[in-house]
Amino acid sequence: MQINRLTQQIQFIIEIDKLKQILRQTLLTDGSRQENSAEHSWHIAVMAVVLAEYAPAGTDILRAIKMLLIHDLVEIDAGDTFCYDVQGNLSKAEKEAEAARRLFGLLPVDQERELRSLWEEFELQQTPTAHFAAALDRIQPLLHNQQTQGGTWRIHGISREQVMRRVALVEVGAPELWPFVEQLIDDCVAAGYLQAGFGLEVG
Amino acid sequence: MQINRLTQQIQFIIEIDKLKQILRQTLLTDGSRQENSAEHSWHIAVMAVVLAEYAPAGTDILRAIKMLLIHDLVEIDAGDTFCYDVQGNLSKAEKEAEAARRLFGLLPVDQERELRSLWEEFELQQTPTAHFAAALDRIQPLLHNQQTQGGTWRIHGISREQVMRRVALVEVGAPELWPFVEQLIDDCVAAGYLQAGFGLEVG
Repeated sequence: MQINRLTQQIQFIIEIDKLKQILRQTLLTDGSRQENSAEHSWHIAVMAVVLAEYAPAGTDILRAIKMLLIHDLVEIDAGDTFCYDVQGNLSKAEKEAEAARRLFGLLPVDQERELRSLWEEFELQQTPTAHFAAALDRIQPLLHNQQTQGGTWRIHGISREQVMRRVALVEVGAPELWPFVEQLIDDCVAAGYLQAGFGLEVG
Repeated sequence: MQINRLTQQIQFIIEIDKLKQILRQTLLTDGSRQENSAEHSWHIAVMAVVLAEYAPAGTDILRAIKMLLIHDLVEIDAGDTFCYDVQGNLSKAEKEAEAARRLFGLLPVDQERELRSLWEEFELQQTPTAHFAAALDRIQPLLHNQQTQGGTWRIHGISREQVMRRVALVEVGAPELWPFVEQLIDDCVAAGYLQAGFGLEVG
């Protein structure tokens, strides 16, 4: 055991506790409060375990789980940008890249490389593993919005068309789950949880 | 895709959202509030990624991560029992077994078996993978209590001897981390975060 190496690892583990304070727009399924990014990351990592059978060929499930566990860490510095906030998303990439440098830079160099490469693979969306991970990251808020009779969608007046654009990558990342996603969205429109038309952009 | 199978999986995914409402005794590192079991599970799963190199021979890291992600799910029905609550821990096993039956029973049979076996392996503590997972589950609250100048220990008047009994299995599950744990506890006693003597049992 190298003491300096372990000290760096422990500092990283303590630092990432802050992700528990980053609030997302998504509400818990009982609507009682906003979800934070740490518990969201836990939820989608469990989804990767339970829904692994729907992953496209070439998906590395261990890598997908690791990716999902760390994909939101940059929000510790950059904050959570609401996916339908057009203005906020313009400056998002730069803030998150800076956050990745600082946060992963707390680790020993080999692990900094490993975790940055996981995070970059998720951001770039060019591998089956990244596609599958992103599909789960899109499906989870759908379930929450359905369970909360519209939740975030109602609060922000989001439309079916905006949601469809947001979840389009499920068709690539987990094609077997796409019919379920389409049906869920149609059901939410029919139930009045989601506006049928085109919504206003936020931000 | 079998619709019934996916329906069961989605019901499970929605149900486990409740873990985000189960509060532990541990405080966040800034002391602002109690941690919940979902974000705790996320934190120790990331620890398994970062500290994998200290796992004993024979540890299956993917299995350890899955185990850590689901090991606390039974608390949805059984609640979180404070580890130093002697009375509460007497009835804990029975309540948790019943919870495991209900929760994992939401899944298709093959996945019910898989997740129950992960949970049981963690509970039984007879494999290197379970030992390593449990070691991380013990180390994380130590870090939080150190960061909060005694946190839970101070609130409940916990002693060094009680903590030492609780973390003893780190020596088996991650022996390379044991000197770090001993030093951390000694430092916390020296700083007055933890009572040096024998504390009262809670409950």
